[in-house]
Amino acid sequence: MDNTDTMIHCGGGETSQRQEDDSKSGMRSAEAILRLLPVILCIAALVLMLKDSETNELASLSYSNLGAFKYLVHANGICAGYSLIAAIIAALHRPITMSQAWTFFFFDQVLTYLILGAGAVATQVLYLADKGDKTITWSSACVSFGGFCHKATASVAITFIAVLCYALISIISSYQLFTKYDAPLSTNL
Amino acid sequence: MDNTDTMIHCGGGETSQRQEDDSKSGMRSAEAILRLLPVILCIAALVLMLKDSETNELASLSYSNLGAFKYLVHANGICAGYSLIAAIIAALHRPITMSQAWTFFFFDQVLTYLILGAGAVATQVLYLADKGDKTITWSSACVSFGGFCHKATASVAITFIAVLCYALISIISSYQLFTKYDAPLSTNL
Repeated sequence: MDNTDTMIHCGGGETSQRQEDDSKSGMRSAEAILRLLPVILCIAALVLMLKDSETNELASLSYSNLGAFKYLVHANGICAGYSLIAAIIAALHRPITMSQAWTFFFFDQVLTYLILGAGAVATQVLYLADKGDKTITWSSACVSFGGFCHKATASVAITFIAVLCYALISIISSYQLFTKYDAPLSTNL
Repeated sequence: MDNTDTMIHCGGGETSQRQEDDSKSGMRSAEAILRLLPVILCIAALVLMLKDSETNELASLSYSNLGAFKYLVHANGICAGYSLIAAIIAALHRPITMSQAWTFFFFDQVLTYLILGAGAVATQVLYLADKGDKTITWSSACVSFGGFCHKATASVAITFIAVLCYALISIISSYQLFTKYDAPLSTNL
């Protein structure tokens, strides 16, 4: 039972109905943008990282030589795919059912953590590659591979904009799920 | 206006009221446990990492030599402090107001991301310290500092249990906020 049913039980007025419709319509637009934006961002970050390799007179360095960057590529790929599928489902199935709301909520939360974790570990590796660590004799790889580090930094920065979109979409899917959940509690009386 | 008001508008029955009270009481207990558990976990992870240092014939290694581990210590300290304050406020102020619900929601989300990020970067550094990276000539520090790595692994593992608690408490605070938010929309009619 959704909120519309609750309103029928409680009585209704056209103005408030219109206000709620406007509010829902605004949220749908925000949701559509926030679900489609990460598709572009994640693919951009993924392609940038995939093409990131540099060869100098001593050695050759590619994203695949660093586990954190491989994880970033995979996470961006998964998130781009999920965002596209979720955007299509969200656009086609309105209003969303309880099971859809739970599915969106679950995957939005999990993928937010996944992409945040990927961004965090990639940032850490970039920091170590830039500064190095004298105590454990880790050299500053960015001294020799400056171009590689610049491209990787751009990819990580784009990933963090996608993280922001995911954090917002998680809030929206929580709202959509829990406002639905409240209705049966109030209307079962 | 909270859910109780919605029920008054819609009519009510004692059984459903009792069911809702039981449900709310269960959620409060879960919330109390999930807010107090990270205090213990974060302090344990923090102390374990703070005391983590090893000296061999070649060098000395402490948590403070690695930025990721320093970040883990800070994040655990912040989360332990916040969880304690939040548990006290949540226990004393019942029912929580709208502004308190927003505050809990905001800080629960931010600190979940903070502690997840700290756990992720510390795991990445542990992985690099264990495996090393031949391409960029990073040695396996854990070969020389096995004891240090073991303690750090334990600290990170405890941090991830705290992350799990935070993920769950974020869901609870989202539920508490958004079910409150739905009430005015339905009852203003």
